[in-house]
Amino acid sequence: MYGIHLLGEWYGCPVDEPLLTQADALRDLCRRAVGDAGLTIVGDRFYQFEPQGVTGTVLLAESHLAIHTWPEAGFVTVDVYVCNYTTDNTGKAERVFKALELALKPRRKRFQTIHRGGKEVIEDEPRNEPLRVAAG
Amino acid sequence: MYGIHLLGEWYGCPVDEPLLTQADALRDLCRRAVGDAGLTIVGDRFYQFEPQGVTGTVLLAESHLAIHTWPEAGFVTVDVYVCNYTTDNTGKAERVFKALELALKPRRKRFQTIHRGGKEVIEDEPRNEPLRVAAG
Repeated sequence: MYGIHLLGEWYGCPVDEPLLTQADALRDLCRRAVGDAGLTIVGDRFYQFEPQGVTGTVLLAESHLAIHTWPEAGFVTVDVYVCNYTTDNTGKAERVFKALELALKPRRKRFQTIHRGGKEVIEDEPRNEPLRVAAG
Repeated sequence: MYGIHLLGEWYGCPVDEPLLTQADALRDLCRRAVGDAGLTIVGDRFYQFEPQGVTGTVLLAESHLAIHTWPEAGFVTVDVYVCNYTTDNTGKAERVFKALELALKPRRKRFQTIHRGGKEVIEDEPRNEPLRVAAG
């Protein structure tokens, strides 16, 4: 269940770009980017804010894409998270991310990669451990 | 547009728990947790894998919740991302996260908090930005 999660914050996107302002346009872009990369769509949901702005997700067999736009500020956040259950999907996730970036044209950006899952476990949850009682 | 993104990986969840195996049950839990915390739902989408497993998202006015389950492994990943556009929603995000954790009963877990957005831009070409992780 090891997976990789790409997180972007994009600043300085064109404020009148329909991809930032219109849910249908952004949905089409996201579905196309995911399909072109060879990931498998199992559903999507996009919401149109008034007067502008979009929030949306594409559910993938491999996990999800999520995107939020604030057109008035030229600001976008994007998440592309893929599990690598049966194959390494990292390259596909990077293709999706890059396609969206090229379309939304940020002038400045932040990017983080989060590695998720994996076999090792960092921390135990002591509250859920069995109660140990020593008989007196 | 400053926001906070809580990421969890939960291990050792009960493998026969309907919340892990059935999309409708998990959807109800997620919507209830979000509503109880005082966040605003603007849509959702959940997908039922066969023979088991669920992937789903709840779109929020404040951003999104995303969850993926692998019941055969007792494994779940969860994301709760809220922007703090007009008010600080961090406490509400933490309430949602905690409610899901209590319901899904992980025996072990990893937790990361990612700070997103903000007015300042750290760098123009951020490909090598160091990962900022707060272990929970």
